[in-house]
Amino acid sequence: MEKIAHEPWGTDLKRRYEEIRRYSVQICKPLEIEDYVVQPIADVSPPKWHLGHTTWFFETFILIPHVSGYEVFDEDYNFVFNSYYETVGSRVVRTDRGNLSRPSVADVYRYREYVDNKMLAFFQAATPSEETCKLLELGLNHEQQHQELLYSDIKYILGHNPLFPPYHTELEYGQRNPTTEMVAISEGIYEIGFHGDGFCFDNEKGRHREYLENFEIASQNVTNREFIEFIADGGYRDFRYWHAEGWDWVKQQEIEAPLYWHFLDGKWMNYTLAGLQDVDSETPVCHVSFYEAAAYAAWKGMRLPTEAEWEVASEQFSWGKRWEWTGSAYLPYPGFKKEAGAVGEYNGKFMVNQLVLRGASVATPYGHSRNTYRNFFHAHTRWQFTGIRLAR
Amino acid sequence: MEKIAHEPWGTDLKRRYEEIRRYSVQICKPLEIEDYVVQPIADVSPPKWHLGHTTWFFETFILIPHVSGYEVFDEDYNFVFNSYYETVGSRVVRTDRGNLSRPSVADVYRYREYVDNKMLAFFQAATPSEETCKLLELGLNHEQQHQELLYSDIKYILGHNPLFPPYHTELEYGQRNPTTEMVAISEGIYEIGFHGDGFCFDNEKGRHREYLENFEIASQNVTNREFIEFIADGGYRDFRYWHAEGWDWVKQQEIEAPLYWHFLDGKWMNYTLAGLQDVDSETPVCHVSFYEAAAYAAWKGMRLPTEAEWEVASEQFSWGKRWEWTGSAYLPYPGFKKEAGAVGEYNGKFMVNQLVLRGASVATPYGHSRNTYRNFFHAHTRWQFTGIRLAR
Amino acid sequence: MEKIAHEPWGTDLKRRYEEIRRYSVQICKPLEIEDYVVQPIADVSPPKWHLGHTTWFFETFILIPHVSGYEVFDEDYNFVFNSYYETVGSRVVRTDRGNLSRPSVADVYRYREYVDNKMLAFFQAATPSEETCKLLELGLNHEQQHQELLYSDIKYILGHNPLFPPYHTELEYGQRNPTTEMVAISEGIYEIGFHGDGFCFDNEKGRHREYLENFEIASQNVTNREFIEFIADGGYRDFRYWHAEGWDWVKQQEIEAPLYWHFLDGKWMNYTLAGLQDVDSETPVCHVSFYEAAAYAAWKGMRLPTEAEWEVASEQFSWGKRWEWTGSAYLPYPGFKKEAGAVGEYNGKFMVNQLVLRGASVATPYGHSRNTYRNFFHAHTRWQFTGIRLAR
Amino acid sequence: MEKIAHEPWGTDLKRRYEEIRRYSVQICKPLEIEDYVVQPIADVSPPKWHLGHTTWFFETFILIPHVSGYEVFDEDYNFVFNSYYETVGSRVVRTDRGNLSRPSVADVYRYREYVDNKMLAFFQAATPSEETCKLLELGLNHEQQHQELLYSDIKYILGHNPLFPPYHTELEYGQRNPTTEMVAISEGIYEIGFHGDGFCFDNEKGRHREYLENFEIASQNVTNREFIEFIADGGYRDFRYWHAEGWDWVKQQEIEAPLYWHFLDGKWMNYTLAGLQDVDSETPVCHVSFYEAAAYAAWKGMRLPTEAEWEVASEQFSWGKRWEWTGSAYLPYPGFKKEAGAVGEYNGKFMVNQLVLRGASVATPYGHSRNTYRNFFHAHTRWQFTGIRLAR
Repeated sequence: MEKIAHEPWGTDLKRRYEEIRRYSVQICKPLEIEDYVVQPIADVSPPKWHLGHTTWFFETFILIPHVSGYEVFDEDYNFVFNSYYETVGSRVVRTDRGNLSRPSVADVYRYREYVDNKMLAFFQAATPSEETCKLLELGLNHEQQHQELLYSDIKYILGHNPLFPPYHTELEYGQRNPTTEMVAISEGIYEIGFHGDGFCFDNEKGRHREYLENFEIASQNVTNREFIEFIADGGYRDFRYWHAEGWDWVKQQEIEAPLYWHFLDGKWMNYTLAGLQDVDSETPVCHVSFYEAAAYAAWKGMRLPTEAEWEVASEQFSWGKRWEWTGSAYLPYPGFKKEAGAVGEYNGKFMVNQLVLRGASVATPYGHSRNTYRNFFHAHTRWQFTGIRLAR
Repeated sequence: MEKIAHEPWGTDLKRRYEEIRRYSVQICKPLEIEDYVVQPIADVSPPKWHLGHTTWFFETFILIPHVSGYEVFDEDYNFVFNSYYETVGSRVVRTDRGNLSRPSVADVYRYREYVDNKMLAFFQAATPSEETCKLLELGLNHEQQHQELLYSDIKYILGHNPLFPPYHTELEYGQRNPTTEMVAISEGIYEIGFHGDGFCFDNEKGRHREYLENFEIASQNVTNREFIEFIADGGYRDFRYWHAEGWDWVKQQEIEAPLYWHFLDGKWMNYTLAGLQDVDSETPVCHVSFYEAAAYAAWKGMRLPTEAEWEVASEQFSWGKRWEWTGSAYLPYPGFKKEAGAVGEYNGKFMVNQLVLRGASVATPYGHSRNTYRNFFHAHTRWQFTGIRLAR
Repeated sequence: MEKIAHEPWGTDLKRRYEEIRRYSVQICKPLEIEDYVVQPIADVSPPKWHLGHTTWFFETFILIPHVSGYEVFDEDYNFVFNSYYETVGSRVVRTDRGNLSRPSVADVYRYREYVDNKMLAFFQAATPSEETCKLLELGLNHEQQHQELLYSDIKYILGHNPLFPPYHTELEYGQRNPTTEMVAISEGIYEIGFHGDGFCFDNEKGRHREYLENFEIASQNVTNREFIEFIADGGYRDFRYWHAEGWDWVKQQEIEAPLYWHFLDGKWMNYTLAGLQDVDSETPVCHVSFYEAAAYAAWKGMRLPTEAEWEVASEQFSWGKRWEWTGSAYLPYPGFKKEAGAVGEYNGKFMVNQLVLRGASVATPYGHSRNTYRNFFHAHTRWQFTGIRLAR
Repeated sequence: MEKIAHEPWGTDLKRRYEEIRRYSVQICKPLEIEDYVVQPIADVSPPKWHLGHTTWFFETFILIPHVSGYEVFDEDYNFVFNSYYETVGSRVVRTDRGNLSRPSVADVYRYREYVDNKMLAFFQAATPSEETCKLLELGLNHEQQHQELLYSDIKYILGHNPLFPPYHTELEYGQRNPTTEMVAISEGIYEIGFHGDGFCFDNEKGRHREYLENFEIASQNVTNREFIEFIADGGYRDFRYWHAEGWDWVKQQEIEAPLYWHFLDGKWMNYTLAGLQDVDSETPVCHVSFYEAAAYAAWKGMRLPTEAEWEVASEQFSWGKRWEWTGSAYLPYPGFKKEAGAVGEYNGKFMVNQLVLRGASVATPYGHSRNTYRNFFHAHTRWQFTGIRLAR
């Protein structure tokens, strides 16, 4: 298999468009056709859907409104590849995606090629307006988000198959942690939120002040070795460490370890993108829910950092190996404003009952991480590459 | 596409093995790889699962016990392709089949080839015992049952795709009905159940006497034209024609017509294996539930025949175009005995809360129908090629 | 508490009306007001609902149509106390009955008194027509059916309360079984169904011939002692004895014994209407589902009788202690006809996916049992006083 | 009915104990026995359960540990009246409370009297330790919280009965709003959280600094008249105003107005504790979910205040008529610490996926409101007396 390189993206939009679009295809190279189709849980989308949906974004928001005489590849694809944009017409109910054998994978690749050709012609025809450039930036960042999802969804699809097929043998090597220390930050007023000239999502905007009390934050993520101590100490069986909802979740789902972990022949193994392997005790624990992260912290007598604490302290520790759960609910910043039109549905409407994650993960494409980035998931989700950093 | 021929099966087991096994593959010829994988509802299995499961039957019940030194193709396949045989080990929960991208379609065909080669060697090595011949017969009839399911499952998969892809343009042509008459049968003692030397399933055995009162039975199935009259007369909106359960089903599922019917531009169309077409008013109505069949009969002031009535009268009318709902619950005949061992799980354990269907359908393989055959489904199911014959 | 007498009902309608109506009230005497209100499962109705619903029947079908100038007690009661009669207007969804604190118990008793006074005036005013007499008979038998349900529903309400309050100390004494024998019946044509002049439900009508093969049937019900042997032999843990649906039910519901049984301090106890007691080994087992009855029979190498076998043999054994599951699905007899109008909804619409029970139980009111009576319940239900009789 | 007085509670614990305990009983005075029993939805508890549970609190945390030789009233009550305290033993699953007809209402009142007598003896025997005084304060505030729930639960029980029985004619009069203005607050560091000597819940502790940007907040709650404008403008049918979850909720539950509103004969009516009445256009809108509050604010081009903004501004506007949804998720303050033992389960374990409400309502007992009080509910809940205050 071709090496999945993390090359720096070009600075001009056309070159970046080509590179980012190519990278999505590259991620799917190791897949069998069958792997593109299934949807084992509602959170996981079939890989062919990701490939089609990101293409639909450029067709719908760039080509149709800005290229006169553009002929859509297939009228039905708006129905099939629309995700959640209520503005743009009826959508396939999310849990039904895994029932669609057609369009075939070959059709989806033809769709990508068709749209890519039109997009390159579009780039060559004229310099896009500033407004269009913003949409293009959004489309590229949107595709990068789906690249991250492609990794986690592929892992879920293969990792829940009884044959445990590996995706690619070189991936998800453990980056071993040096010793962890607590970094102390002094109380005071800090500025939070995106600043600078580059791209950011709307939810990062509205740079504002927050007052932080004194706090300490760990220089490293919690490791598998540390998490195994929590398991061994009965952490999953003692309600005192858990939120009430988390405790219900543990009992109903019979949770005993992070996702992908299996206790086989007296030891913990986990499914990685390289296949089923021994748990590497010195790498960061991964695929834990918010409930587990919070319970671990409670067991340690600590807590999760708020997103403001994390952002302020982020210059002083290394990050980027795991998405890290914070203790902050996903809410609008002061001064948050929805964009007008369909792209305005992007982030604001999810601002209830989700938690903020900060950082980035092994699945994050090059150039797509920054310390103001606000990812968000529901408290029980584990299929992302999620980890734990402690604070107190 | 190669023509799907209905050739007569050979009388010797080896030749029939080859023919029947080949026919399963032939049914799947028009499919894309993606079509083999999905499972839109629990009743429908992915086509690759049917291909694997029927193969697993021969491996498990013939090769493993009777061929010394036989090496199973893949140890994990017992887990993946076992359907419901509690005796033979843990099974994949039925609704999870559509989540399995692996084994790939190519793997499943390799599995078929491997087992077929071993089976042919087995046939050549020695004459099978009578006991083994019975198991072989069961395996072949089992595969034919799955051929029928392959048609109905493929139709469901393609017919619930928003692109409505056709399966094959020559199939499911309507066989037009001549005029219907009521055939009168006199009261008296009749014998029911399988007799003769050929193969039958255990549920047909126990030939026994039943006393039938005078009755009349229609010479033809109800047609689409007649069923449209029921719809037009408000049949789906008048609870008086329905079982209480059927009425709940109509309201909760918002049922207004047979499965695959769509009211488009002022007329009824239906998805057939040849694609979306006008409803042909003179062919038998198809894809109705027991609830709909019984409601239609009530609207007509008639009823469905019992399975005994159907069997007794079957010499006097044509059948074989649709499976026909009877008014009989699926129960053991007097003297019904389960076979010993795993194959004994075949039929008896389903003898509650299902209805008997008699006849055969366009999906039934040649040589697989007889007038003592007892098919059975739950009252709400519609994805089979089910029709209506009236009695009074 | 006043003794719940089983006096013979009077032969004239007025006297029978008074007696039967009084008996419903008598059944509820030992209850606290709170016991009249709750509905722990959908199958169980609050006792005050039974009292109101049976009253509503006489108001709706006798007083409103036949007494000129009749003023309904409360317009809203049609909504509250209608059970399932689609003809008569919208109904309270069945599972919501337990949410209704009003009308109060006192209101319901006032409603009964109001309707009873009007009914007695109606009896005195004129001799009812034959048509009306039939409706009155239906109303009285309907009330007797609800008397039976009152016992089983009260038992469920009190028996699922953690305090296990007794209903009445003298009830549900075990009638001990003498030795069981197998009674042999010869093959031949038998007549089945109601004959005679008295009242019967529509589902008993259509007396007809059935041909029965030779069979044997037990002279007594299975006892608790015998059923404990089944439990001790692992009957609940061996799928081979169970229908597929029954096996799913056992596993999902974690069934290990009949309803109301508790294994406490090394022995089986059960909740009876007289409170929590030792299981009496020599009385008939009670509160088993059809699945359990069929599994027990399979374990014994026997089967359940069909309803025709039961009816034919019923002269030769004692019955009436338990409702007995048969192996027959609840289906219309040949020649079954729905009555016109709302009372026609009575039985026919339930003729799918239920099993016939024959006999009667300790909860059956005097004069309400006969050997052609067809009771019916879903296969998983256990809150009735259901037992097992074997055949082969 | 005795007037439900809002007298000032005494300052000594014994007197306050007597007054608060008496007030719970007073709230229930207008109820029929049947009203004490039912539980129409999981959020609503039967009134008799509230009366028992608050009593159980004093028995379990005061009498059993501190009164030597204390005999519990009934051993089973720990099982029946424990709510969610995992530490103290198994609990009745919350949705099952409405199935329990026993203990009877009379039993529960006897339980209250027994425990009250023992408590008064306890007060007279000795001066409680500081530790015990804290527990007593917690118990009294706990009972006051349940008094608030009693009002909302009683309203739900009666307001969802098809007879719409009134609770009490003098209650829930509308307090009419004077003109609303926007109060401006300047940016800066503010202190948040409880300070002072009195009682507060653990979730209010950890007074800390927050930096607030400039904001404006309305001096009054949104009125019914204003909310009707939102309805009339199609607010419930335009997804752009809604969170994605809120929009799903609106569509699935078919929400078209606040809870208890009915559109009858061309005008909006609502069920109040005094019965079904015309909506009073000048009183604050009530019984809206967080989703509705946020959608209304979005429609107005405004937002909900954060809890910090609310607390800072609360000196400058009137409040106390409705609980007010804030835009803040319910999370621990910096420095939040769980109490040790069972009472430590009180608040912390709910700190995920709920929203903070500030203020108080007509159901709040005298002396139980303060501007640091943090109430919290799930986003979809509407049975509390919840309203809307806007900010920008």
